[in-house]
Amino acid sequence: MVKPPVLDALPLAIELIRCPSVTPADAGALDTLGGVLKGLGFTVEHLPFAEAGTPDIDNLYARIGDGSGAGPHFCFAGHTDVVPVGERNRWTVDPFAATLDQGWLIGRGAADMKAAIACFTAAASHFLADHNGRVPRGGAISLLITGDEEGPAVNGTVKMLETLSARGEVWHACVVGEPTNPRALGDMAKIGRRGSINGTITVTGVEGHVAYPHLADNPVPKLVRLLAALDALHLDDGTGHFQPSNLEITTVDVGNPATNVIPRVATARFNIRFNDRHTGASLDALVRRALDATGVPYELETRTSGEAFLTEPGELSAVVAEAVEEVTGKVPELSTSGGTSDARFIARYCPVMEFGLVGETMHKADEKVRVEDLERLTRIYHGMLRRFFRTPRG
Amino acid sequence: MVKPPVLDALPLAIELIRCPSVTPADAGALDTLGGVLKGLGFTVEHLPFAEAGTPDIDNLYARIGDGSGAGPHFCFAGHTDVVPVGERNRWTVDPFAATLDQGWLIGRGAADMKAAIACFTAAASHFLADHNGRVPRGGAISLLITGDEEGPAVNGTVKMLETLSARGEVWHACVVGEPTNPRALGDMAKIGRRGSINGTITVTGVEGHVAYPHLADNPVPKLVRLLAALDALHLDDGTGHFQPSNLEITTVDVGNPATNVIPRVATARFNIRFNDRHTGASLDALVRRALDATGVPYELETRTSGEAFLTEPGELSAVVAEAVEEVTGKVPELSTSGGTSDARFIARYCPVMEFGLVGETMHKADEKVRVEDLERLTRIYHGMLRRFFRTPRG
Ligand SMILES: [Zn+2]
Ligand SMILES: [Zn+2]
Repeated sequence: MVKPPVLDALPLAIELIRCPSVTPADAGALDTLGGVLKGLGFTVEHLPFAEAGTPDIDNLYARIGDGSGAGPHFCFAGHTDVVPVGERNRWTVDPFAATLDQGWLIGRGAADMKAAIACFTAAASHFLADHNGRVPRGGAISLLITGDEEGPAVNGTVKMLETLSARGEVWHACVVGEPTNPRALGDMAKIGRRGSINGTITVTGVEGHVAYPHLADNPVPKLVRLLAALDALHLDDGTGHFQPSNLEITTVDVGNPATNVIPRVATARFNIRFNDRHTGASLDALVRRALDATGVPYELETRTSGEAFLTEPGELSAVVAEAVEEVTGKVPELSTSGGTSDARFIARYCPVMEFGLVGETMHKADEKVRVEDLERLTRIYHGMLRRFFRTPRG
Repeated sequence: MVKPPVLDALPLAIELIRCPSVTPADAGALDTLGGVLKGLGFTVEHLPFAEAGTPDIDNLYARIGDGSGAGPHFCFAGHTDVVPVGERNRWTVDPFAATLDQGWLIGRGAADMKAAIACFTAAASHFLADHNGRVPRGGAISLLITGDEEGPAVNGTVKMLETLSARGEVWHACVVGEPTNPRALGDMAKIGRRGSINGTITVTGVEGHVAYPHLADNPVPKLVRLLAALDALHLDDGTGHFQPSNLEITTVDVGNPATNVIPRVATARFNIRFNDRHTGASLDALVRRALDATGVPYELETRTSGEAFLTEPGELSAVVAEAVEEVTGKVPELSTSGGTSDARFIARYCPVMEFGLVGETMHKADEKVRVEDLERLTRIYHGMLRRFFRTPRG
């Protein structure tokens, strides 16, 4: 076998950022990545999915080595799609030019998370070169890359995992390349995420004129009583790994433009970010009990967009933390803070953690990462691979 | 002096309804009326008003006799403007055709209140004919007709009264021709109206992501606490002439479409219909005390669109009630119920009551009045004039 090339992360990061892959567009990003991975010896396949009511999405799965589970299998997960540019005039550069300026790489997706994908690809090239282009111990390395993380997340990671698992693919550990570091590389890795549930409360009354209230039934004070009950809910005090679960009423809307009309319907929406003391189903029941106690008739619809998950500190967290410390000199905080990520889906299949670049500018104008951090993150991911394939699994 | 003609109400009512005078349009309605009144010997003048931010409005003041206050002066007040047609397909006839069908006169403005204007004009023609075309006792009869009652009511009755009063015009009694009868002619006259105040409460917080509530400050639960305090307010138990004052929260609006965003601002609006135990100013203070007690910072803007007024039962109510009973056989209830009307402005100048047709269909599709009620209301208004100019004022 010809020894594969050893890559730098920066050129690939630049190439990926130059594909304007705002969800659901791919804009060539997956083919760019797939081409490079093929050059490293990976088997690359596209896994496009479609579902009524959601945009068609392309995804990519690349593996080198045996995925049957006979040997250790390390998976890197991520996404090539990016959030929209937002207000264009708040950017000082072209968001898709991948501008290099005073040690920064600037562009949409630089932090979240094209550069991290480039870093893992470069790390894999180094690791494979260390082993003559083969994965040691009969193992496998894979990249599970979706184009639907920033969108509805329906035609991406979930369906890839189902499809691959159904055909016998087994993973033993996964690291997701989300930008987990608040300020500097090495600050933080994620070992779990809170769950998220959205609810909509509707109160229906009888429309009328404010001068004739006895002919009407105003839903607004009723909704106010329900929301007061919701606001008074105490969910928990947090756990060893999680902060307290938190409920936010995100909107109340009646939309009645007339000052002399009693409206017919009032609605409110809320979101709960919850730790592993709850599930979506248990919170639905908890909320209904609190609302029922007011005696006010209401309708409630809830949708759980992700359950809480936790990868208890252990083998994988040691691999990640040691690799981070080796390069940055810092022991990363093992956190469960922040929003949801596709890691919540992967947690159903294998231990999963998240570590990537600095997220300070993600989703903002002039999204950027330090160029030197690309080289450092490449070494960190390389260190994770070395440790993972050295560690006998229990 | 040539004895003036004696008129029927119906032809004039039809002519007025055929002018599509949806506020602020006049569509010839005031000129139609003015022409008829000139023929009866009235001095007719247009009183157009304009103000930045509101539509230009034409109004009409017609008087016969001496308006200096030396003799008794009876004023009839009303409006030729009408509310919009609404959903056209809910009408079974052309809204501006003034259709006669099975004893009904159907059209926008039939009840509210073009036909009542026609009835008073006809009544005045009869009364003047009784007295050889002159107003007895050195008195005066006037019609104060605005084209801005259903609109902002800024360039209508208020400014007419100010202008006329400033030039020495004095009124001793006024009847407004609003459709006061809930079901049948003779049911109800109005001796007052509740006041109306609108308020807007704004709570400003700090926008953020639901996953990072400590970086945000959600205004919604704060607004909920303020609204709960508002809902708990007890204003009064009513008075001898008025029902209890009533507060309605008419809308709450945040307008946050994102399920993962904590909004920055939440607003609510309320309306209070209040009796003569309160004024707009006293209610503003009362509401602020209740909101302050919550400890939640807020902004409140209020606008009083009308103070409560009451014309205590006395000389005018006797004139009105006896004239109604003479024709209908019923003693009308002297009520203060319902929405506001321009009578609230007239109350500052002289005793004012309201009596007109049956309001059941006002502002609705197929607005209509009984043709026979036009003849009966003409006789009622005629009876009011007879009684008013017979009664020595104290
Ligand atoms: Zn991301
Ligand atoms: Zn009216």
